Amino acid sequence: MHGGGNVLWELFIALLVARLAGEAFARLRQPALLGEVLAGVLLGSHALGVIGTSADSRAVFAALSEIGVVLLLFEVGLESPMGEFQRTGARAAAVGAAGVVLPFVLGAWTIDLLGHSTRESLFAATAMVATSTGVTARVLRDLHATRSRVSRIIVGAALVDDVLALLLLAVVSQLEGGSAAAVALIVVQALAFIAGVLALGLTAFRRYSVRLARIGGASTAFWIALMLALGLAAAASAVGLAAIIGAALAGVLLSESEERRAIERGIAPLVAFFVPFFFIDVGAQVDLNVLRSPGGLALAAVVTGVAIVGKLAGVLASMAGTRWLEALSVAFGMVPRAEAGLAIAGLGLADGLIGPDIFAAVVTMSVVTTLVAPLIVAPLVRRLVPQPPPLAHGPSPAGDVARP
Amino acid sequence: MHGGGNVLWELFIALLVARLAGEAFARLRQPALLGEVLAGVLLGSHALGVIGTSADSRAVFAALSEIGVVLLLFEVGLESPMGEFQRTGARAAAVGAAGVVLPFVLGAWTIDLLGHSTRESLFAATAMVATSTGVTARVLRDLHATRSRVSRIIVGAALVDDVLALLLLAVVSQLEGGSAAAVALIVVQALAFIAGVLALGLTAFRRYSVRLARIGGASTAFWIALMLALGLAAAASAVGLAAIIGAALAGVLLSESEERRAIERGIAPLVAFFVPFFFIDVGAQVDLNVLRSPGGLALAAVVTGVAIVGKLAGVLASMAGTRWLEALSVAFGMVPRAEAGLAIAGLGLADGLIGPDIFAAVVTMSVVTTLVAPLIVAPLVRRLVPQPPPLAHGPSPAGDVARP
Repeated sequence: MHGGGNVLWELFIALLVARLAGEAFARLRQPALLGEVLAGVLLGSHALGVIGTSADSRAVFAALSEIGVVLLLFEVGLESPMGEFQRTGARAAAVGAAGVVLPFVLGAWTIDLLGHSTRESLFAATAMVATSTGVTARVLRDLHATRSRVSRIIVGAALVDDVLALLLLAVVSQLEGGSAAAVALIVVQALAFIAGVLALGLTAFRRYSVRLARIGGASTAFWIALMLALGLAAAASAVGLAAIIGAALAGVLLSESEERRAIERGIAPLVAFFVPFFFIDVGAQVDLNVLRSPGGLALAAVVTGVAIVGKLAGVLASMAGTRWLEALSVAFGMVPRAEAGLAIAGLGLADGLIGPDIFAAVVTMSVVTTLVAPLIVAPLVRRLVPQPPPLAHGPSPAGDVARP
Repeated sequence: MHGGGNVLWELFIALLVARLAGEAFARLRQPALLGEVLAGVLLGSHALGVIGTSADSRAVFAALSEIGVVLLLFEVGLESPMGEFQRTGARAAAVGAAGVVLPFVLGAWTIDLLGHSTRESLFAATAMVATSTGVTARVLRDLHATRSRVSRIIVGAALVDDVLALLLLAVVSQLEGGSAAAVALIVVQALAFIAGVLALGLTAFRRYSVRLARIGGASTAFWIALMLALGLAAAASAVGLAAIIGAALAGVLLSESEERRAIERGIAPLVAFFVPFFFIDVGAQVDLNVLRSPGGLALAAVVTGVAIVGKLAGVLASMAGTRWLEALSVAFGMVPRAEAGLAIAGLGLADGLIGPDIFAAVVTMSVVTTLVAPLIVAPLVRRLVPQPPPLAHGPSPAGDVARP
């Protein structure tokens, strides 16, 4: 009688199937997110067509997905105190930079060799660059490893990675007629945002510590944290960065507050509810039909291979001198492209900068890297970080929810 | 770079303004929901136009609003154990029935007297019937009164109220060419759904109590509760009932489970996040321009007056023999129409069953009853239910969130 029932129904089905599949993967000691992505593939409009059946419902799934990855990176940021963050800063910057440059150069070169135009090769390579930090963040969270050095390097590298990807996107788009001044403005805005937030963190937030409790209790701390996460995420998005960069910075700002534990407890059920939608949404965009033609399959394989090898080579080189296990964890942790690749590829297709064959290849690469990397990262991280004794219900994003 | 930033920005602004306004009202010992509705009025497309600027963002706000009221009624249902629920059943049924019949008869008669067609009068009266249980549920929650007799009578009456409103809507729509068999089918479906769920509750769930912990820990209990709430809400919606009826029944089913407290703790942050969107969304639909013409203002005043007087008279008559304070609390608690009135009026306008003048009057009535009733209910309930000592941060929907 009151409408809205169909979207509610789609949300229910999606969450139910994703949680069951995620739980099944977790019990097999595999990353739960894989089950959620596969649930998205199964239910999405390219397969069963149970979810995303209307423009309204697609908008709702996209929004829940965005809130999910924002809250996830906020939570990871909360576990990354500014001080320890600084100690891994140089390494993280090197990882981020090398992990962008190599896939870009290798990608552009390979696609050019395959006979595509320079313009198309450069844009496709740009879509092969950016890491989806959310994927590895979820693996680290489920394995209680968000306070590890690996986690801090990856979060720091995500920052550098995203700024460089933005710079590349601006430059490549500028080749299509934009002005150099516009490119410079975009990059200056992004850097000013990050510098401004970090400066705030290094002065007010860090020096005096944050005693949110004085302002008005744990409930107020919860709301201030939530507003800071959503606000900085929206602001990052407004200056052209990924929303998750703002969210992670919000978490870092609050990581040394006295109320950190209370904030984590309050945020945990929201993370548990929203995060599966991020992985469902990535899966729902997969169209297995593109892989039917042999040519399409070969192009997808090449793009995927180059994206993986380029990222691994760049990151491993910049992790020289660290423990082998740690270097491998970070390297495979930077492999997933997920929404980052999907977003840039979608942009390129809409603007006619890339053809449908390259688009399909980049989408395949985004999803394959998302599915494969966690399978390798999870066992590596399990050996790096001591695991708590197994519980009856296995690791799950709601592991901390509602426990007395 | 990754899109979606605009909706994120609107969600952030809406939640920020709504929480600040809600907090301001709470500190003045007024219902926080009023601040949230006013924030919606201010930011909505009929005023500043900051939120709901695209079809996508309107779909997202509508979905968050729906999830919010579903979780709110689920939480209230959790506090209504089946046994005590049965004891107030007869009274609740009388309240629900009398609270529907009187506004319908009075409304149809008045609008007919004002010179409108019988068809329009009957449809407008139907839109004046249904109570928005979410509004009073929120007041009861903020005042820690969800375990009171008043709360149980209102939740029970909501059930009867919604079935009767559905029946009326079916009959009135049938006057427009539907068949009597179709009307009967709708009503039978709705009654079968409620009877089925309650039967389940009286047998399996109640007799053996629910030991969700045995299945796999508090995290599993959280997920089962969430899935039951969303699933029964979607199912209620599918048979034509309000989604909140399914959600409240889900809560009642779990109200005697051993894990009730754990479920409440896990759900609380979700309720805190989502519920403000329900009130923001109601406010955002208000168009103050309709009140500029004297004729429109007069019609709105008459419709609002009849809707209030009819509901109060019907409920007070059926509460005969109870404490005066309790009877008044229930009567004013049943006055708000909010989304129930808005939904039916929107349906009527879209189908050409009512004109824009009657539509504007019903919308005004829905919002005025939503704003006025809590102002009267809150002080009554404060006298009925002993209040905990005041906290520094005042009553808020996140009162229980993140407290160590």
